[in-house]
Amino acid sequence: MKRKKIAIDMDEVMADAIGRFIELYKKEFNEDLSDLRLPGRNLQNTVPPERLEAVRQFPHRAEFFKDLDPIPGALEGIHQLHEKHDVYITTAAMEFELCFTDKFNWLKKHLPFISWKNIVFCGDKSIILADYLIDDLERNLKTFTGTPLLFTAPHNAHVEGYTRLNNWQEVTDYFLN
Amino acid sequence: MKRKKIAIDMDEVMADAIGRFIELYKKEFNEDLSDLRLPGRNLQNTVPPERLEAVRQFPHRAEFFKDLDPIPGALEGIHQLHEKHDVYITTAAMEFELCFTDKFNWLKKHLPFISWKNIVFCGDKSIILADYLIDDLERNLKTFTGTPLLFTAPHNAHVEGYTRLNNWQEVTDYFLN
Repeated sequence: MKRKKIAIDMDEVMADAIGRFIELYKKEFNEDLSDLRLPGRNLQNTVPPERLEAVRQFPHRAEFFKDLDPIPGALEGIHQLHEKHDVYITTAAMEFELCFTDKFNWLKKHLPFISWKNIVFCGDKSIILADYLIDDLERNLKTFTGTPLLFTAPHNAHVEGYTRLNNWQEVTDYFLN
Repeated sequence: MKRKKIAIDMDEVMADAIGRFIELYKKEFNEDLSDLRLPGRNLQNTVPPERLEAVRQFPHRAEFFKDLDPIPGALEGIHQLHEKHDVYITTAAMEFELCFTDKFNWLKKHLPFISWKNIVFCGDKSIILADYLIDDLERNLKTFTGTPLLFTAPHNAHVEGYTRLNNWQEVTDYFLN
């Protein structure tokens, strides 16, 4: 494969935001929300209706995105892609204005080989021009003009019509084998 | 003209960063740097060599981008474009990691009609997909796949080979007449 421009989403692709939802839910309501990791689950069908709006506000809090755990295999996988391709990090940061520094610091810490030139904080991803977009959200993939790649997350278990990559082993196999 | 996607840079197109350089230079060295506004001028050919590196670091300081003055006509012009086209703000914010909040707040204050979905903080602008890019830097325009439009700033007076828009009146005439 020739050198390609690969845009990669952050949350649920390289950073475990679901883990933070579970952690904050435990703190707030003293209950376990780890069912959110089951295929097909999302906030809507997992959180009791009376708590749903409160939980949806979690990502708007300061430090929600701070020090999120990496998704298994993501850091090594991105490093491998970076050696053969032009990797861009494209994250819909604008929805959560308190996240900028936490996301930037996460990238500096975990992916120090990614230049600031290759980081994009955006809203609507239809503005992104690349050969590939790896993302967990159909709304981002459906307007993409390159090859969209759906990275499996619990909430997208039922989404069809895209090449699906279930984990980082499948991502690196797709691009490097 | 049909509805188009217009990407617009911030510094020197809608926000007066040169004014901040002049202000900080006055504070730091008690001298006037307003020659920086003359056609053909840039930091390199205006600041004494022994101060050049210090002045180049100004944008890396906290609050350099806070409350910059709007470029004359920019706010009204962007509002007019927004009514007929899809306006995106595309700014190379990643080079200056302390600027995120200041730039975001500037946009909220001065262009409240621009959705967070239409704001992009990036590095290398070759990732931007739009019909038009209005920018003062040739390095951003030369990789753009749509129609590049050079917005006149002192430092780009000698740049040729692009459609040049000298001020916001010319921008709105270009798109709306």
